Amino acid sequence: MTSAWQVLVVGGTHGNEFSGVQLLKQWQQQPLSFPNLVIQTLQANPKAHECNRRYIDDDLNREFTPQRLADFNLINYEALRAKSINQQFGPKGASQTDLVIDLHNTTSTMGPTLILLHDSHWERQLAAYVQQRMPEAVLLFELEQTYQQWGYLCTVGKRGVMVEVGPQPQSVLRQDILDQMRLMTELILEFTSLQLRNELPPLPATIEAFTSVCSKSLPLDEAGQPLAMVHQRLEGSDFTPLQPGEPIFQYFDGRVGYFDGDEPLYPTFVNEAAYYNSHMAFSLARKISLTVAAPN
Amino acid sequence: MTSAWQVLVVGGTHGNEFSGVQLLKQWQQQPLSFPNLVIQTLQANPKAHECNRRYIDDDLNREFTPQRLADFNLINYEALRAKSINQQFGPKGASQTDLVIDLHNTTSTMGPTLILLHDSHWERQLAAYVQQRMPEAVLLFELEQTYQQWGYLCTVGKRGVMVEVGPQPQSVLRQDILDQMRLMTELILEFTSLQLRNELPPLPATIEAFTSVCSKSLPLDEAGQPLAMVHQRLEGSDFTPLQPGEPIFQYFDGRVGYFDGDEPLYPTFVNEAAYYNSHMAFSLARKISLTVAAPN
Repeated sequence: MTSAWQVLVVGGTHGNEFSGVQLLKQWQQQPLSFPNLVIQTLQANPKAHECNRRYIDDDLNREFTPQRLADFNLINYEALRAKSINQQFGPKGASQTDLVIDLHNTTSTMGPTLILLHDSHWERQLAAYVQQRMPEAVLLFELEQTYQQWGYLCTVGKRGVMVEVGPQPQSVLRQDILDQMRLMTELILEFTSLQLRNELPPLPATIEAFTSVCSKSLPLDEAGQPLAMVHQRLEGSDFTPLQPGEPIFQYFDGRVGYFDGDEPLYPTFVNEAAYYNSHMAFSLARKISLTVAAPN
Repeated sequence: MTSAWQVLVVGGTHGNEFSGVQLLKQWQQQPLSFPNLVIQTLQANPKAHECNRRYIDDDLNREFTPQRLADFNLINYEALRAKSINQQFGPKGASQTDLVIDLHNTTSTMGPTLILLHDSHWERQLAAYVQQRMPEAVLLFELEQTYQQWGYLCTVGKRGVMVEVGPQPQSVLRQDILDQMRLMTELILEFTSLQLRNELPPLPATIEAFTSVCSKSLPLDEAGQPLAMVHQRLEGSDFTPLQPGEPIFQYFDGRVGYFDGDEPLYPTFVNEAAYYNSHMAFSLARKISLTVAAPN
């Protein structure tokens, strides 16, 4: 007999990313239902959503490192909320939840991106299944740390993935973005249900994906204030190749800063509004080709 | 002898609209200078900018009605700030400032829009001068009320205009948007300086402009919550014709709402993030052709 999986679909981890919050409302009226999945939903930070802000005190989606979850001296609002979510759906590392899907928006032109934090047969098959049915889907592996080390909310589950869709300004609902988020989420659930029942269809033998490499900060002055903005060349260019020597920064004094890499890389999260307080300008990823194990 | 005009250039009236704040910084280092203009700059709401929010308590750009300025029981932060700006640069109705230029961003695809609140030879010549040198500039007259009745900050001057440039997410700086805002502002100052000295060049005899007609709210349920979002058809369609019968709302239950107007109109401020708290979906404008008086 096929066992069931406990699945948690999360929206509103960031209070001013509206698509996930809206989908949760719709799924409350028409519940998600897939064979062998016990699906719960969670609006992770309703208080921040009420205030129309990303967070009250600190970024909830960075609170789920083992260190922070274990540190009872961290008592800002999101640190407490993280501990509560971890109690309810985790605990991280020994979780009662088999899969967490966390829904996000970005102001960057990321399209519908599936973010994966671990590289095994399961993630590759999931990625292949989603992209086969949603050719515009982008696959981004973040593997700089182990799955357990990340502070992302979705790591509270045994498996966790993020659905990241943009461009959408903060505090706005766009129909195209909402449709893409709904479709990608449903495909992840459909895959999970089929995989559990050993009913996966044939999948592509290889997939094109991206793996994150590093982040680029804006150049700062001695007082820590930006000397430049993201160059127009990069605007809207997420997941398209950036060649060494191409412009990346437009200094306010007229100078231009150039990409000093050794190989073409692929910008991600270009000029994302939420990263201004850390002066992050964009991240860079490498394009990779991954083999996919044939379903049993 | 040609007299000089007192001119005030304002940025940061809304704290999370970054372009104006950035330009003020640049103009502090390289001051704006035009013959016969005495130019001051003002960051209108630094406290809101520090908090990375549109405002602290209330919208500063609605505080400048004669009634609100005279009401000393209104003591929220922006009401007080408005009274202080009115003392310093007004008083509205008998102002020491000849011209106020207020710089704004929108998340809507408005392009570089010059908003005019009065229709006389001066505004039409200004509009013609700007558009002649910046063909992408859009001219929007808001004439539903008299100049004095509007609550906009720029009405603190004898003349007041707004420069409204988008699309730009809140809390983001985009190079193309910054360049357009700088150019339009400099053209307004250049025109003003030339006009004062009777040195205006020949201008087009007519201009194509828009005049605002009404605003459309999202359909709401009995609890005042939105039943729909802006239809994808409208996204990015600012200043392009909307025909009667075209879709405008996508209901969350799958239904579609259609435009019930009698004539084609032109959407503006489509899905602007800042108007979500008032559930405003977009505004509508009519296209008009205006004659321009030949410069003396």
